[in-house]
Amino acid sequence: MTSPSPFPHRNLLGIAGLQPHEIMFLLDEADQWVAHNRAHRTSDHRLDGLTQINAFFENSTRTLLSFEIAGKRLGADVVNMQAATSSVKKGETLIDTALTLNAMRADVIVIRHGSSGAVRLIADKVDCPVLNAGDGTHEHPTQALLDALTIRRRIGHIAGIRVAICGDLLHSRVARSNIFALTALGAEVRVVAPSTLMPAAIDRMGVTAFTDMDTGIDGCDVVMMLRLQTERMEGGFIPSLREYHMLYGLTPERLKRANAEAFVMHPGPMNRGVEIDSSVADDPKRSAIPEQVEMGVAVRMACLDVLTRERRA
Amino acid sequence: MTSPSPFPHRNLLGIAGLQPHEIMFLLDEADQWVAHNRAHRTSDHRLDGLTQINAFFENSTRTLLSFEIAGKRLGADVVNMQAATSSVKKGETLIDTALTLNAMRADVIVIRHGSSGAVRLIADKVDCPVLNAGDGTHEHPTQALLDALTIRRRIGHIAGIRVAICGDLLHSRVARSNIFALTALGAEVRVVAPSTLMPAAIDRMGVTAFTDMDTGIDGCDVVMMLRLQTERMEGGFIPSLREYHMLYGLTPERLKRANAEAFVMHPGPMNRGVEIDSSVADDPKRSAIPEQVEMGVAVRMACLDVLTRERRA
Amino acid sequence: MTSPSPFPHRNLLGIAGLQPHEIMFLLDEADQWVAHNRAHRTSDHRLDGLTQINAFFENSTRTLLSFEIAGKRLGADVVNMQAATSSVKKGETLIDTALTLNAMRADVIVIRHGSSGAVRLIADKVDCPVLNAGDGTHEHPTQALLDALTIRRRIGHIAGIRVAICGDLLHSRVARSNIFALTALGAEVRVVAPSTLMPAAIDRMGVTAFTDMDTGIDGCDVVMMLRLQTERMEGGFIPSLREYHMLYGLTPERLKRANAEAFVMHPGPMNRGVEIDSSVADDPKRSAIPEQVEMGVAVRMACLDVLTRERRA
Repeated sequence: MTSPSPFPHRNLLGIAGLQPHEIMFLLDEADQWVAHNRAHRTSDHRLDGLTQINAFFENSTRTLLSFEIAGKRLGADVVNMQAATSSVKKGETLIDTALTLNAMRADVIVIRHGSSGAVRLIADKVDCPVLNAGDGTHEHPTQALLDALTIRRRIGHIAGIRVAICGDLLHSRVARSNIFALTALGAEVRVVAPSTLMPAAIDRMGVTAFTDMDTGIDGCDVVMMLRLQTERMEGGFIPSLREYHMLYGLTPERLKRANAEAFVMHPGPMNRGVEIDSSVADDPKRSAIPEQVEMGVAVRMACLDVLTRERRA
Repeated sequence: MTSPSPFPHRNLLGIAGLQPHEIMFLLDEADQWVAHNRAHRTSDHRLDGLTQINAFFENSTRTLLSFEIAGKRLGADVVNMQAATSSVKKGETLIDTALTLNAMRADVIVIRHGSSGAVRLIADKVDCPVLNAGDGTHEHPTQALLDALTIRRRIGHIAGIRVAICGDLLHSRVARSNIFALTALGAEVRVVAPSTLMPAAIDRMGVTAFTDMDTGIDGCDVVMMLRLQTERMEGGFIPSLREYHMLYGLTPERLKRANAEAFVMHPGPMNRGVEIDSSVADDPKRSAIPEQVEMGVAVRMACLDVLTRERRA
Repeated sequence: MTSPSPFPHRNLLGIAGLQPHEIMFLLDEADQWVAHNRAHRTSDHRLDGLTQINAFFENSTRTLLSFEIAGKRLGADVVNMQAATSSVKKGETLIDTALTLNAMRADVIVIRHGSSGAVRLIADKVDCPVLNAGDGTHEHPTQALLDALTIRRRIGHIAGIRVAICGDLLHSRVARSNIFALTALGAEVRVVAPSTLMPAAIDRMGVTAFTDMDTGIDGCDVVMMLRLQTERMEGGFIPSLREYHMLYGLTPERLKRANAEAFVMHPGPMNRGVEIDSSVADDPKRSAIPEQVEMGVAVRMACLDVLTRERRA
C-alpha cells in the first residue's frame, strides 16, 4: 500500500483550495533547494529530458528569469515563448496556443497571462502540469509561496503572526494569493489601502481592512508593500504619487508603528519614493526583499520538481 | 566499401530536387522520433557539443519553438537570433550576418527569412548545414515533411491518395513545398483558390487547379487548408473576409463533399471563422491539426540529426 | 605555498588597469579555446551547474550571441535578460536589477549597458564576477582582447607593431579598450578621425592623432576601422556619408599606404561603402574580420572560465 501523495494536484493554478499541509509541504521542499542553491555546483539534473515551456503573454523579467533558472538548474530543456513575438499577435486563440504547446509534448507549462482565468483555460486543454506564474488579478501562487517561505525562515513559523499587506489591493494577484496562503497557515492578515483601491468584498477573505496606514501596521510582524502601478493615477484611483506616498508610502517613521523586529517585503519591482522609501528598502535588517528573490528560485524549483514527479516515476 | 548515404545533401533548402526515397528516408527517421518523444525521458544527447543557431529574420513562434525543442531534445547548444533585436536593424547585410554565424563555428543553422532565396544565399556562404525554416514565398520544407508524415501515419501511404490544398496558393511557401513533396510521393494534388490567389503557372507543377471549392475537394482524402493572411484583403486579393469564408471557408457542410474518412490539415495559426470553422478544426476525428504540430518536432529532430551526421562521424 | 593567481581580479570591467602579463594570460587561455572550438564536439562542461546571466540593457545581437555560445559550450546554464522586455521599463533602478540578479545566485553576470560606468555600479553590488560587454563610451574589454588575439595570431606578436584605429574615436568604447590593450602590449597606436570625432585629450592616451587618413595609415601593420554610427550625421559630427567615405573610408587604393602585408579589422556590423569598401572587407588575405568573430567566442570562453575558477575550486 502506497501512502497518499503529499501534493495530490496536477497543476498549481492558485493557493485557494490548497490544504495548509500541502502548502507546508511545498515550503519544506523549497527549503531544501535553498540549501542546494547556496552550495553551488551540486548538479541535480532530475528534470533531464523533460521540456518546460514558459509561455509568457505578459512581460515579466524577474518571474520569467526565476522560472528559467529554476528549470535549468534541474536540468530541464527550458524554452520561452513570449507573446511579443508570438502568433498570438497573428490572432491565434488562446486555446490554439494551448493545443500547440501540448502537441509539442511539453512536460510542464508555466504561464503568465493578463487575463484572470486564462491559465486554467489552458490547463484544461493540455495533458501536462500547468504552473500559474500570474493571471490577471486572480492569483500568483509561487509569489505567495516564496513570501511565506521568506517569513517562515525569518520568524520560524507563520501561525499567529500579524501581517499587513499595503497598497493596491484591488488589482493585486500577489495580495490575493498571499491572503489565501497566510490565512490558511494561521497568520492574522490586515490589508491597508485607500478606499478606491480596496476590493468591496475583502472582509469575506478573512482579513481586517484599514484605510489608515499607521493604524493598519500597528503592532505588525511583517509589512508587505505592493507595487503601485503608476498608470493607476490616470485611472483616477489615486490623486497623485506625492499624496499616495504621504498617506501610504512606507517611511522609516511609519515603520516604527510596527513591531520592533518587524521586517518589510515587496514583490518588486519597487517604485522607490512612492510606495517605499529607499532607506527602508535598503536596510538589511528591516528589508527581506533580496531574500524574497532568492526564495523565488527555490520555490519554483520545488514546484517544478513536485508537479513532474508522477511523470518521471 | 561503404554504401551511399541515404540523404546525400549538405543542406535542406527545399523539397524540390529531393528524390522520393530521400523524402521517405526523412519520414522514416522522423517516425522513430515520434516514438521517442511519446516515451518521454529517453534522453538522447547525440548532438551534445554541437551549436545550433536559429536565425529567424521573420517572427514565428511555433516554428522557432519547434526547432528549439527539437535541438534541445537532441542535446545541442541551441541559441536563437531574432531579427527584432539584431544588427540586421543596424543595416548589416545578410552576407555579413551569415559570415558572423559561420565564424562562431555553428554546427547547423536554421533560417527563416522573408525573402525567397535568402536562405540559399546564406547556405552558400557558410561551412555548416543549413535548414530552411521558411523563406519568402519559396519553400518551407520541414512543414511539407511534417504534413507528409501526418498523412502517412493516418492513411498508411501517400501514393494514390487525393489531396486538396485550399486557399492563398499565390503567397504560400507551405503550399509549394507540399505540392513538391506530395506529387513526388505519388499523390494526386488539387489546388483550390480564387483566381486572384492562384499562381499563373500552377499547372506546370503537376496539379489540377479549381476555383470552385466544392468541386475541388470532391472525393478527396485530405483537405489541407492554408492560412489567409488577412492583410491580403487590403491588397485587393479578396473582396471581404465574409465573402472569402462563404466561398472558401471549410465548413462541416462543405467537408461532406470530400471522402467519408477525409481529414483536415492546417499549418496554423488558424483564422477560425475565416478559412476554417471551429467545428471542423476541433473535431478530433476529422482534424489532424494537433498531430501536425507533434510531427513537426519529430521531423525537425530527424533533419537536425541527419544533416549533422557527417560532422559527428 | 601556492603561486599567485595569473589573473587576480574578480571582474573584467575594462582593460585599463590590467597588467600586460594579465592580458597575455587571457590571450593564452583563449588560444586553447580556439583549438577546442575548431576540433568540434570536444565537450568541456566545466561550468556545469553554474548560472550565467547575460543582462543586456542595450541591443546587441553579435555580442550576446557570442557570450551565449561561449557559456553554453562550457556547460553553464545561460539565461538572457534583455532590457526590451525587462522591468527596467517599469522604472526599476539599476541597483534593484543588480540585487535581483544577485539574489538569484548568479555565478557570473555579463552586462552591456548604454551608460558608462553602469557595469561597475552593478559589479559593486553583487557577489559574483561581472564581465563588461560594453558600457557607454567607456570600455568593451572582450572586444579589445579578441582584437589583440587576432593580431597576435596573424603576426605572431604585438610589441613593436604599428596599428591605426580609424573613425569615430569620440564615441567608441571599442577604440578606448583597444588603445589600452595595444599600448600596454607595446604596439605603436595611431588614431585617425575628423577633428569633430577626435576626443580632446587623446594625446594623453599614448597615441598619435591624425586627421588625414592617408598619412595616418602610412606604414601601418594593422588598419582597424570603427563603425560609423550613421546617426552621427544628424548630430552634425560629419557633413555627409559620401564625404565621410571620401575622406575616411577604407578603399583598396587607400590601403596601399599601409604596409604590403597589412590587414584590416572591423568590430562589425560594417557599413559597407561608408567606412569600408566591400572589396577590402571581403578580401580573405587583407581582411581579418571573420577571424575576429571566431576569436570573440574563444576570448569569452576564456574570460568566463578564468573568472569563475575560484568559485569552482
